[in-house]
Amino acid sequence: MIVNCVAYEQGHRLRDIRPADIADYMARPNCFVWVALHNPDKEELAPFETVFDLHELAVEDALHGEQRPKVEEYGEALFVTMHMITVADGELVSGQVAVFAGPGYVLSVRQHPGQGFAGVRKRCEHEPELLKQGPSFVLYALMDVIVDRYFPVVEALEAELESIEDQIFVRGTARSSLERLYQLKRQTMQVKHAVTPLAEASAHLFGGRVPALCLDTQEYFRDVYDHLHRIEMAVETVRETIITAIQVNLSMVAIDESEVHKRLAAWAAIFAVATILAGVWGMNFAHMPELDWRFGYPLALALMGLACGGLYRRFRRTGWL
Amino acid sequence: MIVNCVAYEQGHRLRDIRPADIADYMARPNCFVWVALHNPDKEELAPFETVFDLHELAVEDALHGEQRPKVEEYGEALFVTMHMITVADGELVSGQVAVFAGPGYVLSVRQHPGQGFAGVRKRCEHEPELLKQGPSFVLYALMDVIVDRYFPVVEALEAELESIEDQIFVRGTARSSLERLYQLKRQTMQVKHAVTPLAEASAHLFGGRVPALCLDTQEYFRDVYDHLHRIEMAVETVRETIITAIQVNLSMVAIDESEVHKRLAAWAAIFAVATILAGVWGMNFAHMPELDWRFGYPLALALMGLACGGLYRRFRRTGWL
Amino acid sequence: MIVNCVAYEQGHRLRDIRPADIADYMARPNCFVWVALHNPDKEELAPFETVFDLHELAVEDALHGEQRPKVEEYGEALFVTMHMITVADGELVSGQVAVFAGPGYVLSVRQHPGQGFAGVRKRCEHEPELLKQGPSFVLYALMDVIVDRYFPVVEALEAELESIEDQIFVRGTARSSLERLYQLKRQTMQVKHAVTPLAEASAHLFGGRVPALCLDTQEYFRDVYDHLHRIEMAVETVRETIITAIQVNLSMVAIDESEVHKRLAAWAAIFAVATILAGVWGMNFAHMPELDWRFGYPLALALMGLACGGLYRRFRRTGWL
Amino acid sequence: MIVNCVAYEQGHRLRDIRPADIADYMARPNCFVWVALHNPDKEELAPFETVFDLHELAVEDALHGEQRPKVEEYGEALFVTMHMITVADGELVSGQVAVFAGPGYVLSVRQHPGQGFAGVRKRCEHEPELLKQGPSFVLYALMDVIVDRYFPVVEALEAELESIEDQIFVRGTARSSLERLYQLKRQTMQVKHAVTPLAEASAHLFGGRVPALCLDTQEYFRDVYDHLHRIEMAVETVRETIITAIQVNLSMVAIDESEVHKRLAAWAAIFAVATILAGVWGMNFAHMPELDWRFGYPLALALMGLACGGLYRRFRRTGWL
Amino acid sequence: MIVNCVAYEQGHRLRDIRPADIADYMARPNCFVWVALHNPDKEELAPFETVFDLHELAVEDALHGEQRPKVEEYGEALFVTMHMITVADGELVSGQVAVFAGPGYVLSVRQHPGQGFAGVRKRCEHEPELLKQGPSFVLYALMDVIVDRYFPVVEALEAELESIEDQIFVRGTARSSLERLYQLKRQTMQVKHAVTPLAEASAHLFGGRVPALCLDTQEYFRDVYDHLHRIEMAVETVRETIITAIQVNLSMVAIDESEVHKRLAAWAAIFAVATILAGVWGMNFAHMPELDWRFGYPLALALMGLACGGLYRRFRRTGWL
Repeated sequence: MIVNCVAYEQGHRLRDIRPADIADYMARPNCFVWVALHNPDKEELAPFETVFDLHELAVEDALHGEQRPKVEEYGEALFVTMHMITVADGELVSGQVAVFAGPGYVLSVRQHPGQGFAGVRKRCEHEPELLKQGPSFVLYALMDVIVDRYFPVVEALEAELESIEDQIFVRGTARSSLERLYQLKRQTMQVKHAVTPLAEASAHLFGGRVPALCLDTQEYFRDVYDHLHRIEMAVETVRETIITAIQVNLSMVAIDESEVHKRLAAWAAIFAVATILAGVWGMNFAHMPELDWRFGYPLALALMGLACGGLYRRFRRTGWL
Repeated sequence: MIVNCVAYEQGHRLRDIRPADIADYMARPNCFVWVALHNPDKEELAPFETVFDLHELAVEDALHGEQRPKVEEYGEALFVTMHMITVADGELVSGQVAVFAGPGYVLSVRQHPGQGFAGVRKRCEHEPELLKQGPSFVLYALMDVIVDRYFPVVEALEAELESIEDQIFVRGTARSSLERLYQLKRQTMQVKHAVTPLAEASAHLFGGRVPALCLDTQEYFRDVYDHLHRIEMAVETVRETIITAIQVNLSMVAIDESEVHKRLAAWAAIFAVATILAGVWGMNFAHMPELDWRFGYPLALALMGLACGGLYRRFRRTGWL
Repeated sequence: MIVNCVAYEQGHRLRDIRPADIADYMARPNCFVWVALHNPDKEELAPFETVFDLHELAVEDALHGEQRPKVEEYGEALFVTMHMITVADGELVSGQVAVFAGPGYVLSVRQHPGQGFAGVRKRCEHEPELLKQGPSFVLYALMDVIVDRYFPVVEALEAELESIEDQIFVRGTARSSLERLYQLKRQTMQVKHAVTPLAEASAHLFGGRVPALCLDTQEYFRDVYDHLHRIEMAVETVRETIITAIQVNLSMVAIDESEVHKRLAAWAAIFAVATILAGVWGMNFAHMPELDWRFGYPLALALMGLACGGLYRRFRRTGWL
Repeated sequence: MIVNCVAYEQGHRLRDIRPADIADYMARPNCFVWVALHNPDKEELAPFETVFDLHELAVEDALHGEQRPKVEEYGEALFVTMHMITVADGELVSGQVAVFAGPGYVLSVRQHPGQGFAGVRKRCEHEPELLKQGPSFVLYALMDVIVDRYFPVVEALEAELESIEDQIFVRGTARSSLERLYQLKRQTMQVKHAVTPLAEASAHLFGGRVPALCLDTQEYFRDVYDHLHRIEMAVETVRETIITAIQVNLSMVAIDESEVHKRLAAWAAIFAVATILAGVWGMNFAHMPELDWRFGYPLALALMGLACGGLYRRFRRTGWL
Repeated sequence: MIVNCVAYEQGHRLRDIRPADIADYMARPNCFVWVALHNPDKEELAPFETVFDLHELAVEDALHGEQRPKVEEYGEALFVTMHMITVADGELVSGQVAVFAGPGYVLSVRQHPGQGFAGVRKRCEHEPELLKQGPSFVLYALMDVIVDRYFPVVEALEAELESIEDQIFVRGTARSSLERLYQLKRQTMQVKHAVTPLAEASAHLFGGRVPALCLDTQEYFRDVYDHLHRIEMAVETVRETIITAIQVNLSMVAIDESEVHKRLAAWAAIFAVATILAGVWGMNFAHMPELDWRFGYPLALALMGLACGGLYRRFRRTGWL
């Protein structure tokens, strides 16, 4: 689906144009065309492939939404694929955005159920001074918005981690903590695989040898890289903390287990003493004088109670009960 | 076994030729020869060694099917070894494919029980525009098909991992989960050792300094590299998840163990109380008035039942039972 | 809030100046302006943005106090962001300091509740020989003080770790050790994320290609880098030791558990022997001659005592009790 | 001990020569000397040190057989140290081989109890076409044979690992598996420390900047490197698998433990029920009608049997027994 | 404290000189001054700071003995800091040695309680041929001796590790093994932090771009680097083995625990059978014919003995006892 197809001159919106007229506008000086597609099929993409002279491999990548995030140069043009990730009901929803940017054009191909880039376009059109830097600025604006959308995702991961941490030192929650940590680990890895390759790739858009298209906008791409790096660091922290939390969880299970054991042992000792005493007075010896005492029975019960109570207090003091 | 020996001109199939005629065809301009061998022995390979001027070390590597995946330059020629991996009955079957590509020739040597490259040849012959780029395009097509065959392998690993994950939080499956995880870890390492060195090696076929043969086709090799990198990432995810899953499995065993312990402790306490009571009334004191009561016995049984029931309910409430 | 706005000439303090006069002083030879802001809002920063010609991206970073530590070049100017970390009541308090340094000016923007840089300014003004090296020396002085403030933080982490270590081989402290180790791990990661990127970034201020501003002061920046590296190493040691300590803690739990088990087993055996003996003499066989002995009962008790005592000594000797 | 001292011309063996004549033969064009020493002392090595102009540091390294594997350049000459490892009775036997190679000479110094290099010399002398490439080819031949001798070592490690793996999921073998895994880990590290530095070092003998001596033979050294890399990969796999196996072993112990616990709990419950019933009928209440029944006793026994049998079947069904 | 202050000419000792005369001797051709200080304060160092023109940052580092090992260039001069580590009573004692080396002078500043460098000076003076290479050779000699003193330290670590390993598979030593492993881990990290940065730094003293001072002596520094690398490898092996040993220790605890459990379970079963039998014959049924048998009692005891013995033998056979 074609979402937009607009021509810009000197950073100002000229008008919505038909795909057939693109070549005319690209020929004008200081003019470029910005096209946005959503879930296009091969046929919808074909006319742009011709007019922008896109490489067949890049087109294939744009259509099959499972690419590794990357930045590729094809001659003077750039081809960028990114993962767009959003949180919905605690689940991560992932899609792909591919951007072709070359002299005179930007083409974005989005394959993600969520929010589009109408906001980006609006913001760019409000800053014609910046927009007149042309396609590379649009590319920056698109990358910037996608990267900015990672922040709430990472915050969701961090919030989930904190919520698990609150639980981890509470008894009896080991199983559910573990399931949540495992799930969180997977989500963290998904975000990491979106962020790390893109950070690596975007590092080529500023600094040393820079594609001609980005020469004047490299400070912006450094900013994108910087945000990606910050996200990477946060993700790495979450990841490392999860690993520690899983270990701590195991230790907590062992500690709880150990405490259960001590209590078990203490009660077993108390019961065993009572059992032995009852057994002793249940013996059938002919000469057991206490059996004939008037208060033998209550005394015996009292003795049993005392013995058990004494042990109980002792175990209490040593912390086993 | 010689599978094919065909000459191509300007990207079009000329004809099947005899090995003896290869030199003639190689001498023609815009012409190259594409030979495919399957499990050849030293004698079968010898004539090609001469006509293509292959290096003895490379020939040895092609004949001994246990090489590390690699891309080597011998003068203007390239020598590529790859692992071909397929899944059969849950097991990974591995073989080697070696490709010699130089000006005027491509020679593929396959040592793998499975499917050959007839499909690749057919597809190439349908696109003469591409095929006329010569041996390096054929090299790309062969690498591409082998790399594409890794995807179902990785998907099989991921499917197995997911199936284990469904099991991992279910009680009583720890042992079988563990065996399957261990097995999966080994298979993952096998795939990794096929993919990682090839990704590294193929990174030299595009970008900075590129072998002369690949100058015009480097965008294709970048695509191969990109696929390999994607597979690497997937394999790495599987690997890391297995490690976590083994730890989680251990934790689950400890948690289950802990729960068994609690139940054991609870029942032991209940039984102990009944035993003590029975022991008390089994004592032989002369003066135990309740022993002579009319309903002493049923009362005693009732008291024992009550005591046990009370404990049972209490343990129930604290979650030990 | 504007903390200071002072002009310097040849390393000597000229006078406090109004922001409006900055341009005049910057125009003088051998003269520079050093401005210090604390928690400024966009409006407060605006005049400096104009007079120092600051890049909008850098300004945004300076205002939003959650940047990754970094060193960025904007033309001839440098933009540095750092985390300032202090310890308060066992908690780490973190804030950001951003420094803009260019020909003729230094502007520091602090967003941290704690101590400011009045001391730095004073020390610099006492060494006009050094201060006359200009903005890059001020930048060094600011980095130096922030980095020096990491040392007590790391020492606090090390002290906490040592205090946990004293506890770790003591029985019954596993749970609290674990909580403290987990907490310490988090703090360590916070410090690491302040130090590591800054170390990486500051490595570009000396050695190979150096920003023009730092040409004459690079030995100072090497010193900063060196301190950062030392802190990194200390943090890394703490981090690795925590990981080991968590494992050791788990082992200690298992060892304690094992000892509890042995004691439990030993006592259970002792009690069981007494119970069996009591049970035997409680049997109702008609012909049990010992039951009729005069001293049968005391003998039986003695035998039970002996059996238990014998077992007790035996377990004692094998270390189970 | 001088094993051999032979002069070669144009790849053909001239004759055994005395050390004193070495200089004469080195002066001839297309001529080189190949000396092999075994466990020499300082005095035996001294004459060669002079005639070949060996650096004192290299000579020291050659005499003290505990060097890190390395390749060093001394002017036009190369100095290579390698570990030679063989398997004897399940133990790894390690020694050092040092090779000095320069224009006109090769000197090998072996300090290893096992097999020498007579075979290498014979094979080289059978291929004068190759041998006439001079000292660097001999260096290659020596490196090649040492590296080839690593393969059986790695296979022995792999065989041991597989044998442990067969055992690891079998109950009751945890202790011996663990001891064997620990031992294997140490051996693996020994091999790794022989292979990894040599692979790194040999990577400098082909490709970019190559020592003059190896210019024409670099494809051979690439082959050596390739073999080393393959061994490294195999060793790495063994190492990583051992780590996993140790974890799996721990999990297996925990699982077995858990099963023992369940059985213990089940039997304890069965016995407890029988004990309670016997206790009940051992009580001394006056009115316990069943005690006077004709078949009270057998009925009681039957009831006890039934209760125990019922529990037994129930535990059987839930898998606890 | 000034330990020595000696002038050398052409590698030969001229005489002990006063610090005030240093400048004169430095002015002579082929002459250099070698000064050794021990625990100097700021005042003692001041004259040398002036005459050798030392950088204030380097002087500060030399006085504060907690630097990271490093090699820094200040113009033509080199500044090297190293950790000196010795073993005393099983503890590691650490100190710092700083060396300033420039054209015409070497100044060593030692802050370590142990042995000084008198031996190094003596050895150098015995080899005037080498010593005449000047300050860089002295620097090498000092580095060499410090690095050589690491070897016994590493051997002490290895010996301690081996002694723990002998213990680790012995029952009942888990706790002490663990404490020793933990302690060893810390010491290993201390050595590592002395060795690794120095190895990295010393790699800049030979090979590619080398400080002018070391041009003619770089083969010596390569030797130092080589030794450091060997030590690093050994330390790394110790470190990795400790990690494995801690895991193995935990597994051994679990295995021992498991065996204790089995024995406990077996004895519990044996005792329970005896208890039940005694309980049965303690029941008060009127019609229990065996109670009246002449040999009922001994038969009962025999039966109990048989049952227990049978179980005992059975458990023995299955390895539980």
